[in-house]
Amino acid sequence: MDFLGHSVGKDYLCGMNNQDTIVAIATPSGMGAIAVLRLSGVEAIAIVSKVFFSKKKDAKNLSEAQGYTIHFGEIRDNNHLVDEVLVSIFRAPNSYTGEDTVEVSCHGSVYIQQALLQLFLRNGARMAEAGEFTMRSFFNGKMDLSQAEAVADLIHSENAASAQVALSQMRGGFSQELAQLREELITFASLIELELDFSEEDVEFANRAQLTTLLENIRRVLVSLSESFALGNVIKNGIPVAIVGAPNAGKSTLLNALLREERAIVSEIAGTTRDTIEDEIQLGGLTFRFIDTAGLRDTTDQIESIGIRKAYEKIDQAQIVVFIYDASRPESEIATEYAALMQRTRGKSTLVLANKSDLVNGQSRPSFLQKNQVFITLAAAKNEGVVKVTAALVNQVETAALSNNQVVVTNARHYQNLIQALSAVDRIREGMDAGISGDFLALDVREALRYLGNITGAIEVDRDILGSIFGKFCIGK
Amino acid sequence: MDFLGHSVGKDYLCGMNNQDTIVAIATPSGMGAIAVLRLSGVEAIAIVSKVFFSKKKDAKNLSEAQGYTIHFGEIRDNNHLVDEVLVSIFRAPNSYTGEDTVEVSCHGSVYIQQALLQLFLRNGARMAEAGEFTMRSFFNGKMDLSQAEAVADLIHSENAASAQVALSQMRGGFSQELAQLREELITFASLIELELDFSEEDVEFANRAQLTTLLENIRRVLVSLSESFALGNVIKNGIPVAIVGAPNAGKSTLLNALLREERAIVSEIAGTTRDTIEDEIQLGGLTFRFIDTAGLRDTTDQIESIGIRKAYEKIDQAQIVVFIYDASRPESEIATEYAALMQRTRGKSTLVLANKSDLVNGQSRPSFLQKNQVFITLAAAKNEGVVKVTAALVNQVETAALSNNQVVVTNARHYQNLIQALSAVDRIREGMDAGISGDFLALDVREALRYLGNITGAIEVDRDILGSIFGKFCIGK
Repeated sequence: MDFLGHSVGKDYLCGMNNQDTIVAIATPSGMGAIAVLRLSGVEAIAIVSKVFFSKKKDAKNLSEAQGYTIHFGEIRDNNHLVDEVLVSIFRAPNSYTGEDTVEVSCHGSVYIQQALLQLFLRNGARMAEAGEFTMRSFFNGKMDLSQAEAVADLIHSENAASAQVALSQMRGGFSQELAQLREELITFASLIELELDFSEEDVEFANRAQLTTLLENIRRVLVSLSESFALGNVIKNGIPVAIVGAPNAGKSTLLNALLREERAIVSEIAGTTRDTIEDEIQLGGLTFRFIDTAGLRDTTDQIESIGIRKAYEKIDQAQIVVFIYDASRPESEIATEYAALMQRTRGKSTLVLANKSDLVNGQSRPSFLQKNQVFITLAAAKNEGVVKVTAALVNQVETAALSNNQVVVTNARHYQNLIQALSAVDRIREGMDAGISGDFLALDVREALRYLGNITGAIEVDRDILGSIFGKFCIGK
Repeated sequence: MDFLGHSVGKDYLCGMNNQDTIVAIATPSGMGAIAVLRLSGVEAIAIVSKVFFSKKKDAKNLSEAQGYTIHFGEIRDNNHLVDEVLVSIFRAPNSYTGEDTVEVSCHGSVYIQQALLQLFLRNGARMAEAGEFTMRSFFNGKMDLSQAEAVADLIHSENAASAQVALSQMRGGFSQELAQLREELITFASLIELELDFSEEDVEFANRAQLTTLLENIRRVLVSLSESFALGNVIKNGIPVAIVGAPNAGKSTLLNALLREERAIVSEIAGTTRDTIEDEIQLGGLTFRFIDTAGLRDTTDQIESIGIRKAYEKIDQAQIVVFIYDASRPESEIATEYAALMQRTRGKSTLVLANKSDLVNGQSRPSFLQKNQVFITLAAAKNEGVVKVTAALVNQVETAALSNNQVVVTNARHYQNLIQALSAVDRIREGMDAGISGDFLALDVREALRYLGNITGAIEVDRDILGSIFGKFCIGK
């Protein structure tokens, strides 16, 4: 019985023409001081050699250059100088893709990048598809599928936590965990087989208990991994936070104060992240996505007493609700707002912020608050107490797993497969309890192995799935 | 007499702290497969060594690494893994800046780029100012000022012609021409000195004729260089073209047809140049900027017979005027439009295009056209005849200088200095004609030398000027 399926690779390599040499601009698009084009494939060094002329008189041809060396020279297109460049040589298998690879570092003009790209295309390279460099790395056994996916996550990471989780996954942390699970499932399967072989002799095996323990262990790890997805998801996509409160309570001031605190760190680098952060703030290495509750302001004329009905709709999308109020207003009004809010947020993490504390003498914790309610006084406009808000927000997210370097699942595809593996394991357990025979149990074992194999590509993964995985990459990786 | 002034360098180096090690992200901003950070200065290798850990067990420390080698490893911030990177080592003086330089190639996440940048800043590097890498290259004698300026031009180049001119200037073509001019002026000065030394003996020198010939030669080169600025300017900034014509003549269709022809070449590379080309088209390696004459459409109801009054205002800004008409309209109407247009464009290059030729049988050259008027029939919507328009547009620009590899001045600062050097040379010549004594002539020679020296930085260039030159660079170069 072969529980392992057959390993991926050859079948796909036959379908793909891996004799092609691919090329792409690997650096971000647009103008910069320098840009890098990357070629990979058997002809990579030969193609660049055709158009590269060293500046050193005694220089060897690129085709004789050692791996991990850099060469300064000119790229010429039929005696027409295109640019002066640095060429880095990597020789198979010691490269990212596992193939011969050349990186050409040129002046970062958009025109020059395109001119070089087209020159390489004319000289026998083919335009790389999105993710194709990493796909080749996968096919050449440099990384498994979950590691390859982590590369894309790493490139898209926008905060410390998501970068850390992606890096750990890229370096094989998750893969090891999965390999161990598969190994245990195979051990389990072989124990069942043993039982099957001897079943006609009607021997009662002592290892029933061993089987149960083994399965429990597998189940525990699967549960823990799939539960980590809740954290992984917020790490990757940001934690939705709704800031609600009456008009003029200081919502925008708070957002700006939080933003300013974070911006201060990166303020000397112009414009690089501006587009993405609008209503997103990186705090403690996590991304918080603030849900727009501006609707609140528009409806205040009509809804006077509470005035947060509109904002309520947003609360359902949030994972954390921040209720901010003007501490100089009568406590009875705030109590009404708070009570109404609590009816809606039941169960969600909620922070209560008494803003404008500088306008009030001896501001104390309001009596209407529930006992364990997180409560912070601040003066957002004066930047007082904002650090406490930051800390409280980060505290709401269970980040213990991160600091313990536990594996965190961030990928929905992995989560789906884990859940399905878990349900197969549950079926095995039920089958055992019901005294079902070993060969039926084996079907579910194979099923569980298949789902785990899907994650790393250890078994043959559907071509469409591969396409959708690598299609999410940017070109050049 | 010292005509040379003193060479730049030391004075500025004292003012600058060139012991600093500078760092910047060198690749375009944003997310990409990879990004490159560059450090330069005496501490560059030491700073990266502090946080870099090789993946090879037997690897030497970076500080022992040879120049032009690449090293794969991890960047760690106090045991916290930041990224897996490739590190390229360049040792002084064999680097772009002439200093020790390290390039760190990381995963192109915006977060990781920032995290690495800040790690290097915390470990002793300082944020590079715009153009500071190239400024150091200049101060370290790797290139003169006009070459340094060409680096910025090269990075900003958006077409073949501007890249070619910038590359040639960066490689010292212009500098050589200037060096020769300065040498000839110094020869001239020494001949005058000789005359001065012997003047009391009232000797009539045979070398008066030699002096005149020398000066004529200097003047001829200066005139040719400053005249090349007209071409240089359009190469760098694009050639303004007004497309005028009655509503529905096919202006947009023509623009799209021209654009499509060009886009076809680059269509497989997504999004890299889209922002910049809007109404700019690269044809034959030149940039044509199409001036918006949309105003024409809005006013057609009121101005019926000719309807191009509004567009006339745009014509003054154009260098080339393209008049397009619908060939199926009555020739008398077109004749009226053309006559009115010619009154306005007097002297400008004009193309006349008879569009929608597919709707007319036997379309011939209209009788009202001036004899040497360029005339093209086309069907823009069917993409017929568009190639002829492209060729005619490129023909309007005198590009002979480009193909002959002549030096073309593209920089307004250089042009100003050339013009002023030329006017000093003219004063020398007038002085000679008026029999002014050698020591007065010498003043103008020194003046001419000073202006030429300004261009390459061979003499001390004003600090504010340096600031404004390098301030135009992007950070990281």
